[in-house]
Amino acid sequence: MSANVPTDICFSFSGLRARGGRTGPHKDGWGMAMYRDGDVWSVHDPRPSADSDMAEIISSTSLKCDIVISHIRQANVGGVCLLNTHPFSRLLWGKTWSYAHNGQLENADELSITQHHPLGSTDSERAFCWIIEQLQSRFDDLEPALDVLSEALSQLALQLKEKGVFNMMLSDGDKLYCFCTTKLHWITRRAPFKKATLSDEDVIIDFKEVTTDKDVVTVIATQPLTQDEKWEQMEEGELCVFDGGEVVFQIKANL
Amino acid sequence: MSANVPTDICFSFSGLRARGGRTGPHKDGWGMAMYRDGDVWSVHDPRPSADSDMAEIISSTSLKCDIVISHIRQANVGGVCLLNTHPFSRLLWGKTWSYAHNGQLENADELSITQHHPLGSTDSERAFCWIIEQLQSRFDDLEPALDVLSEALSQLALQLKEKGVFNMMLSDGDKLYCFCTTKLHWITRRAPFKKATLSDEDVIIDFKEVTTDKDVVTVIATQPLTQDEKWEQMEEGELCVFDGGEVVFQIKANL
Repeated sequence: MSANVPTDICFSFSGLRARGGRTGPHKDGWGMAMYRDGDVWSVHDPRPSADSDMAEIISSTSLKCDIVISHIRQANVGGVCLLNTHPFSRLLWGKTWSYAHNGQLENADELSITQHHPLGSTDSERAFCWIIEQLQSRFDDLEPALDVLSEALSQLALQLKEKGVFNMMLSDGDKLYCFCTTKLHWITRRAPFKKATLSDEDVIIDFKEVTTDKDVVTVIATQPLTQDEKWEQMEEGELCVFDGGEVVFQIKANL
Repeated sequence: MSANVPTDICFSFSGLRARGGRTGPHKDGWGMAMYRDGDVWSVHDPRPSADSDMAEIISSTSLKCDIVISHIRQANVGGVCLLNTHPFSRLLWGKTWSYAHNGQLENADELSITQHHPLGSTDSERAFCWIIEQLQSRFDDLEPALDVLSEALSQLALQLKEKGVFNMMLSDGDKLYCFCTTKLHWITRRAPFKKATLSDEDVIIDFKEVTTDKDVVTVIATQPLTQDEKWEQMEEGELCVFDGGEVVFQIKANL
């Protein structure tokens, strides 16, 4: 989620967490990184989100954030444990970057890591550590401008895509960077707000009742979370950067 | 906390979190590792616990756990950010070990690390990584018996104590290991349960109303959290191991 006002993720997370062991097979843990004003909270739980008390608390409590990255895991590479649970986080340019990955990469151990070693044993975390190292080695201690950084991320993501499926979300608390290989959908909600119905839970929300006219809220997910709204589909190889709920940069690859 | 039945930490955490920026100076982030049946949730937040919505949620929600390690930070070494926020966690012997440290160590960079590199920049995390490496190098992939492991932890903690103040809590979700340099207090509550009053908040609880006769719950803290109960004080150089709320092993150093 990326929003221009602190916004809670109760509705969307209710739908997502159902897929973690009930309406979907992603039962091998879940996690969330929640940013507000650049600070971040994180929660990780190796249990299925559908059964987790902590997920119940998060989905029923009105924690308001600018950017949220949440992940439900279906384990391929790496056991089911806390350190293999997304989102992963690393420090770069004085900020905490959080990252989640959908998909599977072959030969991820070929990605050269000299400094930011993974803690767990997933291909996903290794790819993240590699991205952080590549960025640091290209730009050293100076964060580049948005267009330059986006171009670099696009190039790195395209390299990872050669190893398999790399659908990704990445944030520094300011921007939300999304890269699509096979599936990423997004929807921007703004005035006039309407009703929406979750696909995975018997829940309807009327966004008019919980928003003001100025709110802009974008939700990105591998599969649409609602059944009665029109979600945009990202293209293969596309990088989309969100800021305050708006698309602020977009790179489409020539595949 | 160590308990023989899943127990919530609402009462104790209400007192602890007040010290994170309101009744105490430990305003540089807070975190919690909550174990139940060997699984673990973790929450980290670089904001003051006294002001944190997430801390508010945790302190008012009845999440029931076997073991909880919680920490409020007063930053000495390392900036205020997520990766410097306790408790830290690492995998060893197929389990997630969580750890929090009170105190300050000199020349922590002299602690040799070859494999389990710290993610953040605190002396605390470095000491933890060093402990994990030392345990792994001594015992390889085979977890030793409780007495052998406790003896090893006691020796390692005494070495760290030579570098400064090392009050520590460490858990694998089964046992809770506590080591005292300057201050650690603990109280075991069991039938007949009584009332208790927090020191830092205007809150009284009657444990009779929230327990059964079989419950045994031990809370350990640097400073007693209640004002009308008798807390035990650990000795300098003492290692205490708790299981199900009971002290199951104790090593007192000959200083």
